[in-house]
Amino acid sequence: MPDAPSHSLARHRELIETALRRAVEFDADCPATLAEAIRYSLLAPGKRLRPLLALLAAEACGGSAAAAVPAAVAVEMIHAYSLVHDDLPAMDDDDLRRGRPTCHKQFDEATAILTGDALQSLAFEVLATGVAPADRAARCCAELARAAGPCALVGGQADDLAAEFRPIGLERLQSIHRRKTGALFRAALRLGAIAAGASAAQVEALTLFGERLGHAFQIVDDLLDVAGNQDDVGKRLKKDRGRGKATYPELLGLEESRRRALALIAEGCAALESFGPRAAPLCELAEFVGRRTC
Amino acid sequence: MPDAPSHSLARHRELIETALRRAVEFDADCPATLAEAIRYSLLAPGKRLRPLLALLAAEACGGSAAAAVPAAVAVEMIHAYSLVHDDLPAMDDDDLRRGRPTCHKQFDEATAILTGDALQSLAFEVLATGVAPADRAARCCAELARAAGPCALVGGQADDLAAEFRPIGLERLQSIHRRKTGALFRAALRLGAIAAGASAAQVEALTLFGERLGHAFQIVDDLLDVAGNQDDVGKRLKKDRGRGKATYPELLGLEESRRRALALIAEGCAALESFGPRAAPLCELAEFVGRRTC
Repeated sequence: MPDAPSHSLARHRELIETALRRAVEFDADCPATLAEAIRYSLLAPGKRLRPLLALLAAEACGGSAAAAVPAAVAVEMIHAYSLVHDDLPAMDDDDLRRGRPTCHKQFDEATAILTGDALQSLAFEVLATGVAPADRAARCCAELARAAGPCALVGGQADDLAAEFRPIGLERLQSIHRRKTGALFRAALRLGAIAAGASAAQVEALTLFGERLGHAFQIVDDLLDVAGNQDDVGKRLKKDRGRGKATYPELLGLEESRRRALALIAEGCAALESFGPRAAPLCELAEFVGRRTC
Repeated sequence: MPDAPSHSLARHRELIETALRRAVEFDADCPATLAEAIRYSLLAPGKRLRPLLALLAAEACGGSAAAAVPAAVAVEMIHAYSLVHDDLPAMDDDDLRRGRPTCHKQFDEATAILTGDALQSLAFEVLATGVAPADRAARCCAELARAAGPCALVGGQADDLAAEFRPIGLERLQSIHRRKTGALFRAALRLGAIAAGASAAQVEALTLFGERLGHAFQIVDDLLDVAGNQDDVGKRLKKDRGRGKATYPELLGLEESRRRALALIAEGCAALESFGPRAAPLCELAEFVGRRTC
C-alpha cells in the first residue's frame, strides 16, 4: 500500500489526533473500563480518512481547518462506533480490526455495545458544543444524525446483513454501500464545509465529490479484500466471500472494478474544479484512495 | 396501580403519540424490518413519563407544549433505545418489556442492536431540526448528548452490569441510578424548558425537581419489582434479586424506601413553588409516580 499523501497533511493529522484524545477524557462518572474501551476503539491507529476530509473541505471553502475540528472528531466517532457494533457476534462477528482484537474480544460484548452507544452520543456532544455559531452547530447535528440514521448508515448495515448468502445485483450492492459507507463520507465533507461557513454551491460540489469518493472507496475495499495482504490491511480478509457477500470484483471483475474506482475519483475531483488550488489536497487524498488498489 | 392523573393530560398524550408516529415514517432507504422494529420499540404502549415531563416543563415556564414536542420525542427515543439495548442477551437478557416480547425476541439480536442505534440518531435529528431557534436546538442537542453519554446513561448501565452479584452500598446504588435513570428525567425537564425559552433560574429549579423525581422513580421501580404484579407492571419481576442486583427495599426496607420516595417527591415539588399554579401538573405527575408504590 503506498503511503498516504504526505508531509502536507501532518499538521491536519496532529490536529485530529489531539482533538480525538481530548474528546475522550472523562470524569469519574464514566466507569474506568468503559472509558478504556472507548479510547481503545476511537484512538486505535487508523487512516483518519473521514476527519481529514472534514478539515480539507473546510479549507477548500476558504475556512480554517480548526473550525472543522469538531466535525472531524464527530464523524470519526460515528465511524468508530459503527465498526464496534458491526464487529459484534450478532452482526459481522469479527475478531480483528485495525490489526488488534475487536472491542468485544478485548473487553466483552456488553462493553462493546455500550462503547458504540457512548461514541454515538459523544459525536453529537462534540458537534453541538464545538461548532460555532449555533445555527451551524444545529445544522451539523441534523446532517450527521441523518447520515448515521436508519435511512443511511444503520439501514445500510441492516441491508448488508440481510444480503448475506443471497445473490444481489450491482444496483442493490451500490444502494447498500451508498448508505453504509457513502453517507458518512458525504457527511464528513458537508460538515466540514458547513462548520466553515461554506456557500450552498460549495456544499453541493463537495457532496458530489464525497459521493463519488465514498463509492470508489468501497470498490477499493472490496478489491483489497480479494487481493490485499492481511498484515497491510489490518483486518481479516476474504471474509466477504466467506459470508456470502457480493463484492464489486465478483460482479464486475478485477479490472473493471479498478477502472470504475479511478473513474469515480476523477469525476469527484472534476466537481471541485471551481475551487481552484484550494481543493488540491482533497484530490490528492482521493487519488491516494485509488492507488490503494495497485 | 392507580390511573395516571388524568383528563388534563389527554391533550399532551395525544401530542406525544402523534409526534412519535410521525417521527418514524421512513422512505424506502430504511429497510422494512428495521422500520418495523423501530416502530415496535418506540410506539409500544408506555407511560410516556419523560415526554410528558418535557411538555409540562415548557408550560411551567410560560411556553407552549408544542415548542417542546421535539424535546419530548427525542427523550422518549433515547429511553426506548436504552431499553432495547439493555434487554439484549449480553446485557440484562430480558424477554418481556411493556407486556410484549423484547425487540431481540420479536426480531433478532442484530436488528435490536441496529434499532437502538437508529433510535439514538433519530433523537438528535428530531431535536436539531425541530427545536427553534437554532441556539436552543444546539443547546438541546448538547444536553441530551451528555445525558445519554458515558458519564450518564451509558455509564450508569455499565456500572449496573458490573455491580451484579456484588454487594454494593446505598451510595453506589444511588450513583448508578442518578446516571442510568436520573440523567434522562433531568434532561427531559431541562430540554422542555430550554425549548420553551426558559430563564436560567427556571431551568435550575426544574433540574432539581427532575433529580428528585428521577431518584424517587427508581425507588418506586425497585418497590414494584419486589411487591408489584407482573401483569400490571408489564415486565418480568423479581429479576433484580435473580440477577443479584442491589435494590432500595433490600438496603433500606420497604417502609423506609416508600418514605424516601415520597419525601423526594415533596422536595421536588417544593422546588417549583415559585412557578405558581403553572407547575401544578408537574407536581400531580410526580405524586402519581409516588402513588404507584401503594
